[in-house]
Amino acid sequence: MSRLDFTLSAGPTVASAQTLAALGSPITYHYDPEFLDLFRATERKVAQLFETRNDIVLMQGEAIVALEGAARSLVREGMPVLNLVQGVFGKGMGYWLRDFGAELHEIEVPYNEAVAPERVAEYLDAHPEIELVAVVASETPSGTVSDVSRIGPICRERGVLTLVDTVSGVGSMEFRTDAWGLDICVAGAQKSLGGPPGVALVSVSAAAWDAIGRNERAPRASYLSLLDWKEKWLGGGAFPYTPSVSDMHGLAACLDQILDEGVDAAIARHVASAAVTRAGVRAMGLDLWPVSDDIAAACVTSVALPDGLDDVQVRKHVRDRYGVMLSSGQGAGNIIRIAHMGPTASGLFPIVGISALGRALMDMGWEVNVGAGVDAALAVLSEQRG
Amino acid sequence: MSRLDFTLSAGPTVASAQTLAALGSPITYHYDPEFLDLFRATERKVAQLFETRNDIVLMQGEAIVALEGAARSLVREGMPVLNLVQGVFGKGMGYWLRDFGAELHEIEVPYNEAVAPERVAEYLDAHPEIELVAVVASETPSGTVSDVSRIGPICRERGVLTLVDTVSGVGSMEFRTDAWGLDICVAGAQKSLGGPPGVALVSVSAAAWDAIGRNERAPRASYLSLLDWKEKWLGGGAFPYTPSVSDMHGLAACLDQILDEGVDAAIARHVASAAVTRAGVRAMGLDLWPVSDDIAAACVTSVALPDGLDDVQVRKHVRDRYGVMLSSGQGAGNIIRIAHMGPTASGLFPIVGISALGRALMDMGWEVNVGAGVDAALAVLSEQRG
Amino acid sequence: MSRLDFTLSAGPTVASAQTLAALGSPITYHYDPEFLDLFRATERKVAQLFETRNDIVLMQGEAIVALEGAARSLVREGMPVLNLVQGVFGKGMGYWLRDFGAELHEIEVPYNEAVAPERVAEYLDAHPEIELVAVVASETPSGTVSDVSRIGPICRERGVLTLVDTVSGVGSMEFRTDAWGLDICVAGAQKSLGGPPGVALVSVSAAAWDAIGRNERAPRASYLSLLDWKEKWLGGGAFPYTPSVSDMHGLAACLDQILDEGVDAAIARHVASAAVTRAGVRAMGLDLWPVSDDIAAACVTSVALPDGLDDVQVRKHVRDRYGVMLSSGQGAGNIIRIAHMGPTASGLFPIVGISALGRALMDMGWEVNVGAGVDAALAVLSEQRG
Amino acid sequence: MSRLDFTLSAGPTVASAQTLAALGSPITYHYDPEFLDLFRATERKVAQLFETRNDIVLMQGEAIVALEGAARSLVREGMPVLNLVQGVFGKGMGYWLRDFGAELHEIEVPYNEAVAPERVAEYLDAHPEIELVAVVASETPSGTVSDVSRIGPICRERGVLTLVDTVSGVGSMEFRTDAWGLDICVAGAQKSLGGPPGVALVSVSAAAWDAIGRNERAPRASYLSLLDWKEKWLGGGAFPYTPSVSDMHGLAACLDQILDEGVDAAIARHVASAAVTRAGVRAMGLDLWPVSDDIAAACVTSVALPDGLDDVQVRKHVRDRYGVMLSSGQGAGNIIRIAHMGPTASGLFPIVGISALGRALMDMGWEVNVGAGVDAALAVLSEQRG
Repeated sequence: MSRLDFTLSAGPTVASAQTLAALGSPITYHYDPEFLDLFRATERKVAQLFETRNDIVLMQGEAIVALEGAARSLVREGMPVLNLVQGVFGKGMGYWLRDFGAELHEIEVPYNEAVAPERVAEYLDAHPEIELVAVVASETPSGTVSDVSRIGPICRERGVLTLVDTVSGVGSMEFRTDAWGLDICVAGAQKSLGGPPGVALVSVSAAAWDAIGRNERAPRASYLSLLDWKEKWLGGGAFPYTPSVSDMHGLAACLDQILDEGVDAAIARHVASAAVTRAGVRAMGLDLWPVSDDIAAACVTSVALPDGLDDVQVRKHVRDRYGVMLSSGQGAGNIIRIAHMGPTASGLFPIVGISALGRALMDMGWEVNVGAGVDAALAVLSEQRG
Repeated sequence: MSRLDFTLSAGPTVASAQTLAALGSPITYHYDPEFLDLFRATERKVAQLFETRNDIVLMQGEAIVALEGAARSLVREGMPVLNLVQGVFGKGMGYWLRDFGAELHEIEVPYNEAVAPERVAEYLDAHPEIELVAVVASETPSGTVSDVSRIGPICRERGVLTLVDTVSGVGSMEFRTDAWGLDICVAGAQKSLGGPPGVALVSVSAAAWDAIGRNERAPRASYLSLLDWKEKWLGGGAFPYTPSVSDMHGLAACLDQILDEGVDAAIARHVASAAVTRAGVRAMGLDLWPVSDDIAAACVTSVALPDGLDDVQVRKHVRDRYGVMLSSGQGAGNIIRIAHMGPTASGLFPIVGISALGRALMDMGWEVNVGAGVDAALAVLSEQRG
Repeated sequence: MSRLDFTLSAGPTVASAQTLAALGSPITYHYDPEFLDLFRATERKVAQLFETRNDIVLMQGEAIVALEGAARSLVREGMPVLNLVQGVFGKGMGYWLRDFGAELHEIEVPYNEAVAPERVAEYLDAHPEIELVAVVASETPSGTVSDVSRIGPICRERGVLTLVDTVSGVGSMEFRTDAWGLDICVAGAQKSLGGPPGVALVSVSAAAWDAIGRNERAPRASYLSLLDWKEKWLGGGAFPYTPSVSDMHGLAACLDQILDEGVDAAIARHVASAAVTRAGVRAMGLDLWPVSDDIAAACVTSVALPDGLDDVQVRKHVRDRYGVMLSSGQGAGNIIRIAHMGPTASGLFPIVGISALGRALMDMGWEVNVGAGVDAALAVLSEQRG
Repeated sequence: MSRLDFTLSAGPTVASAQTLAALGSPITYHYDPEFLDLFRATERKVAQLFETRNDIVLMQGEAIVALEGAARSLVREGMPVLNLVQGVFGKGMGYWLRDFGAELHEIEVPYNEAVAPERVAEYLDAHPEIELVAVVASETPSGTVSDVSRIGPICRERGVLTLVDTVSGVGSMEFRTDAWGLDICVAGAQKSLGGPPGVALVSVSAAAWDAIGRNERAPRASYLSLLDWKEKWLGGGAFPYTPSVSDMHGLAACLDQILDEGVDAAIARHVASAAVTRAGVRAMGLDLWPVSDDIAAACVTSVALPDGLDDVQVRKHVRDRYGVMLSSGQGAGNIIRIAHMGPTASGLFPIVGISALGRALMDMGWEVNVGAGVDAALAVLSEQRG
């Protein structure tokens, strides 16, 4: 097996040197006044990134801890909930919602498509009893996005709460929590922010807090509890449990870098790398998985593998022979994903991904024109920066 | 406020330079073959530290996530459980057990004492219906330990399961999971191991897995689930959620250091620093909180504050004027805790703690003989190393 | 041998976590535009620290490379030079000056005293042919300082050039290059700046450049050459040889920290720690080496060892038994030096040094009152920060 | 200007994460017993790398400090010396040798050729008075190598000393100091070793020490002195000046990695990346600078720029638009150098260099077939690793 030279996986992605240095900076007591200041400042930076005045909760754990916590916090027994499914994360949320007692409604589309906002509006109009819509803004395994800029207002106008999984979305796609009226949003640090993989970023609107407060089954005195954070920390300055000092250092550092660069510039950087990658993949003669570029994520490009090729084999070949780590589709389809996420959403990183994937397919007997792919990708990059 | 020069808090404690470097090492994809190897090797190191052949589960989150997960996994509605309480963590476990449906039995002692193993034996003999004993091996807020070397066998002989909170114990006290027959043990990395504060180390016996498997209410498809780890990861090689690559790097590094030093040597180092600290505190004219040295923890020394002094004020003065971070008792009593935990369980660190606390009390008008304390502490240290 | 817990040596001293992170940050090409910017910005920060508008030269190597280079650059065959000797570094400069061809004049005092500025004035008036005065501002091995604030103007008024060794002085003592009319000043990064040990900081006045330019024997096309730096780098933007990118990162970081703190505040911090240390040493019953506190360095305290004790043995005992690294006098006398230099010029670090030295002397059979020393030191510290 | 994504310069090259962590590890006193052990262990590792039993001297400074020191140490007034010139570093050595008093003989070839060993043999036979041959084993600016495996024995058989500049050679080309009879060899850490740029590695044979000892003009009591290191450090355990603790940590780390990988494997890795790069450059339609692949360096590929293109402009375009740092020829010719040196001598790094250079030339109006270059390079890489 080759040494690992490049990680182009869809998260955890690589972190910048500054972020790594922050992760490795001295660990202090979590009640040290300097850490308390840093924790609060980090909340404010997250709010800035989310474009929100809502409360920010920083839970210790992979983002899924917050998705589970939020869903459990909101869902009451028998509550009518509409879940939008365009990939495996959306599908999984549906299983949870049902488990937690919801009366589940779903709009599901093939995993290379996106749920049209119009369908959401129609569905809500036809089912005015629905109280909550769950939506995945960035379906990382599919490499697709959802148009929450329209779904959010559709829900708000109808007085329906929203629970938004934007784990990989924030930092690589426009995301305006307050302008779009999103109630609970959950992001991870280890995706488009290029941060550490152990912390979940959550925003909670006043309406969501009200709903949670009224929900007897909302987790309390639990690791999954949003309420504990509200009451103990936001209300009382006491942590419900020890946060990871090192993760907070890492998170603060990657946020500083994004805010220094400018959130819009960071998003544009992802969008540019996605365009370079898509041009290269197509010119090699391969197909993209999403049905249209409109719904393709800016942080990761999903490539549909030709029939007869297996993503496990391909990824293993790419890693073993070329020292490049790509991602599979985690069940979304027979796809390979080249991420351009965080620090790898830049310059020639897509060339590395295209070359590795293309040459591996050639090695495996497939007809792929790698040179044409690289040429096309470079042409787009040159134009972008010209 | 002074700059922070010394962190002598009771966890998160400081990490060594090697551990910090590991925490800040490049982040890879969690399915990269090198990370998979590291993850499995880390499990084996934890098993070595716990002296067990049981399964090891490494959950992403502060140790409390595993305590909650384990308690929820074991407790059935109406299950008779005996909870041993000698401090705030034991007390909290009781609230949880009751919340999760247990028929709660408790043996409670003042928070500067320890539950005698004999009382446990008597109680179990009088209540043969009890199926589970919950015990805190190291009550960090009190700075006391529990004699699990005797409580474990007492339970095992009676066919009673044990749930052991040894969050700060492993690494600073003898801990023999298999020899003592302990079923579920939970440790944290950020205490006596000097590791990162975001990962929970759990060992689970076959008997415990059986009990969990039979428990319909055990968390499944949840961040709190031990079963998910068993079925997906241990059984299938798939992570139930993304572990923190950086935390695993940090954990592997601190375990390597302890195993290189020798677990017994690391424990002896804590025991020695505790003796130095206790000698110093007493010679200054202050009282220790635990009723006897037998039950005093090796990783932290609890000092009883004289009446009229408030721990918040004292700690603030120590931090503001002397740049030293000490811990409070987190509700266990009016105490100040000087930790000697991980890297600070060594040499002259206790002198720093003694000097800072002693001089602060003098500043606040109390009669304390700091010089005598330092002399006594140094005498013990010189003797230990002579 | 104990593990190393504390480095209280007189340079290299410990570096802060930020400085270490910078030292370990990615290495770039030395002609990368970002590095060129950083190099020039670092020169400006050094100028700010030196309080000068003179040219700054950053030579790659331990400070002595610049002292040798400067002396060779200035000294012509037969040139009358006055060398001030109050320690081993001053003595060594004399050997060099003579080797390089100077007609050597010296004022020498015992190594626990300082050359009085008045004597310099008198000597220069009596020897008007002298063209250069060499002076050590901070004689680190002795722990003494020279009053360059008065010696500088004395020389300038008489048209005599000055070559100032302030390797450990800058950052811990007032140092006003331009106000005092100092021509060539050489500092190291690894002393009071808490930086890396591989870079020399030099300021050169216009008058010094003139003298060097006229000196046929001044090193040219040599690693020792100041002129190369002037002509190639300052004049032409080309490095005479590859500078250490990592050292520059470390230097920039420690300068940023000092400038953020404020140079005066950093000096005051050293002065305060020196006072704490001296109070402690005296109260233990030991003698200070410098004849008066007026000439004691702020970055290191020299303790005269009682007859019959050997500094090698004492330091070995301190290191072996207590894990603390102290310095010897490097030939200046039978002394032990406790440094409070860079990050260790703060709070309770002096207590560690006092305790380690004092207890070691007790172990070796000497009568020392460590407790009284710690009490006295803490009293001074409490007063300083009260 | 784009952010810097890739440093493919010819040294300083990038360092691995482990090396960077070591560079940023805590700084200790240089006489701390642990540092003394590390320093001596590092000398032994260097000896292993050089394949020598000669003394090793580790001088603090860029490698040129040792080249100057060695030349000054060996050359006596009027000493006949043969200097082999095939590039700018060889040329510069000639200026030095003459400056230092040698009676200079030179064999010079165009800077894209190499001096044939036969010519050296003939020259020495014709000039039996010659006492020293200076040769550059790896002319980094030209990207060419010299056949020291034959030149060494030719000199040894004739009793002629050798001074070998292998600054970038060791680690990327076979180098057998003792087997080939090389007397003084100088390497840098920041080239093929992927180490820090502030330390020079020198091996000195007994014959060379003899010659130096007999040379009255050899530097003594100087930063340039090899003798100081022999007498003070190797002979007496005292450093002639403070070595950089951080550089030693970094050097030890990169040596550990190379020795773990195996020196031969590390060399093979460079050779492989050079072959990939050359195939790519040629297939793009560009010319290599060295007249034959036999003399092309394994650590860097020199590309001849077409007339009408200026290397400064090209490199600026590559850096500004594509975030890749390449090197110029430093005066050796109108060339651009793509390094594959240390960590970048691996996998797809050459693809990045080829793509960046090729596309930049296209942007500047030149006809280059980047796709064909990438295809050819990937074909070689696939074959190597197949």
